[in-house]
Amino acid sequence: MATLTIAIDAMGGDNGPSIVIAALQRALKHFPQCQFVVVGDETEIHPLLQREKLSNHPRVTLKHASQTVTMSDKPGYSVRAKPDSSMRIALELVANDKADAMVSAGNTGALMTNAYFSLKTIPGILRPALMSAIPQAQGGSAFMLDLGANPVCDSDTLFQFGLMGSVAAQQGLAIERPRVALLNMGEEEIKGNDVVKATAQLFQQSALVNYIGFIEGDDLFAGKADVIVCDGFVGNIALKSCEGLADLLLDNIRSNIHNHWLTRWFVKLFYQRLQRSWDWLKPDHYNGASLIGLRGVVIKSHGDASIRAFYSAIEQAVHEAQQHLPQRIRERVEQLLLEQE
Amino acid sequence: MATLTIAIDAMGGDNGPSIVIAALQRALKHFPQCQFVVVGDETEIHPLLQREKLSNHPRVTLKHASQTVTMSDKPGYSVRAKPDSSMRIALELVANDKADAMVSAGNTGALMTNAYFSLKTIPGILRPALMSAIPQAQGGSAFMLDLGANPVCDSDTLFQFGLMGSVAAQQGLAIERPRVALLNMGEEEIKGNDVVKATAQLFQQSALVNYIGFIEGDDLFAGKADVIVCDGFVGNIALKSCEGLADLLLDNIRSNIHNHWLTRWFVKLFYQRLQRSWDWLKPDHYNGASLIGLRGVVIKSHGDASIRAFYSAIEQAVHEAQQHLPQRIRERVEQLLLEQE
Repeated sequence: MATLTIAIDAMGGDNGPSIVIAALQRALKHFPQCQFVVVGDETEIHPLLQREKLSNHPRVTLKHASQTVTMSDKPGYSVRAKPDSSMRIALELVANDKADAMVSAGNTGALMTNAYFSLKTIPGILRPALMSAIPQAQGGSAFMLDLGANPVCDSDTLFQFGLMGSVAAQQGLAIERPRVALLNMGEEEIKGNDVVKATAQLFQQSALVNYIGFIEGDDLFAGKADVIVCDGFVGNIALKSCEGLADLLLDNIRSNIHNHWLTRWFVKLFYQRLQRSWDWLKPDHYNGASLIGLRGVVIKSHGDASIRAFYSAIEQAVHEAQQHLPQRIRERVEQLLLEQE
Repeated sequence: MATLTIAIDAMGGDNGPSIVIAALQRALKHFPQCQFVVVGDETEIHPLLQREKLSNHPRVTLKHASQTVTMSDKPGYSVRAKPDSSMRIALELVANDKADAMVSAGNTGALMTNAYFSLKTIPGILRPALMSAIPQAQGGSAFMLDLGANPVCDSDTLFQFGLMGSVAAQQGLAIERPRVALLNMGEEEIKGNDVVKATAQLFQQSALVNYIGFIEGDDLFAGKADVIVCDGFVGNIALKSCEGLADLLLDNIRSNIHNHWLTRWFVKLFYQRLQRSWDWLKPDHYNGASLIGLRGVVIKSHGDASIRAFYSAIEQAVHEAQQHLPQRIRERVEQLLLEQE
């Protein structure tokens, strides 16, 4: 298996670099073919690597970055004022072919803007999109995009999201003809806004996407589609609303259980099982999100990522790098251009 | 207490008139001050009323309608081709001051279009909105609107939704200065699309609304706001996505419980308790939605409403009629016009 190099922004995220280094520890075991470049403030990172006995690890390199993008930095400011941030340096490693992918738990807006600045989009791609795997009722996953990179999208952009998601699902979910659906407020053709309707027409006209029609919010997890397309405003709100409901339900279960004498002893066993299984059901927290459409693999881990979540983001970076996802998307875009001629 | 008359469209909904009549039975007990006009096909409704011993009830009137709006009727068609539908007749009773409110579980699009046609909006109100109460973490509810009446909204319309929601929360939730928030993909002022940003400015400039800023999807149920404003496209998708997730989680719990030998016996008691409590957490299913901004009270019950859900919609109609909600909104709009002079 070819050697891969993964660049890790160790300074991003709410929980500090120690989470990142613990996740790296796990990744080193699981991916013996991977090199890791840890980017961050060396006075902070080096002791952590030493503590975990990784400072002399043959597959770990520490790369110093004198700046850190904070969670409150404005995207434009982070690009202009922090050229030596750990985030930017990790991205530049990918841009300069020194790494095959990068992972960051940093400020989403800053990551998108820096990634766009350093990597640029694949030729022909209008906008990168934030994509994540969401769980489905019968098991398995669907890819949903955009989750917040683009608050406003035109129909050409949404069409490309479907195209990119389709390639990603072929590679990542091993589905030959992924079913692509558009998220809408109704299933009938007359429903929704003009952009959604125009996008539906573009899908219907293209042989490159296996378009199956509109899907409503209540079918987001129903296993009806493999790729779910929406603009970043709707996608972000839909997924975060689900997160909010999951929290509410967990609270509700807790109080339901506590209220009943028969069930009080039951709490520990059952509730913890459930909570564990629900981590997975909060896709925004658990899965990394791919910033696809760029000339390199960029994975965004949740700012509040646990060790497991950050490890899962690294895993995703490895998979997308192995699949050469940007290259696969580039090929599909070239097919699209031929189709349009 | 003043006598109120509630018009009930008995033909709407997926579950047929028998659900409606059973809910009416319950409403008669709970609201001794109310008269009910049941509108529908008398050959179908009369036997149901007889069976429930309601055909000679002093507070129940049956009004025949020769037509029924089906779930697949296009809104415009239902207005043009079905002037004698049970839905329209019930609305006309409100328009002609023969009833104080109407309730229907029929086709949402048709109900909105017929209601707009029969009742018109309150002077100064641009668009009616679909509003529902959604549960909050510390108990209680918040009002969310629009949930699907308007797929595209400008900032003036969203501002008015905040104004109407605010009046509704004062009346319905007994909150003196309801906290009004705008649903957005981030809490920072730079986040979101132009319409959301322009609406935020309108709210900030008005003394008539206690605006508290942006709210993200994951805070939808967190008790941070009393009124949550969004366009119908986003609102519909956010709430339905939550419904989808609730279904997925319920499945997940079931299989989690079943998988464990210790817990299998536990299923019946626990799962049913949970399912009952979750009905309430699926706001779209359980609560009626108010179509506010019209010159009369119109409550939409879910197409798939149970007896309890339809009863709850009737209850809501009674409350809004008692509160004279359309009149209260009219007064606030007049204040708004003064403010703008």
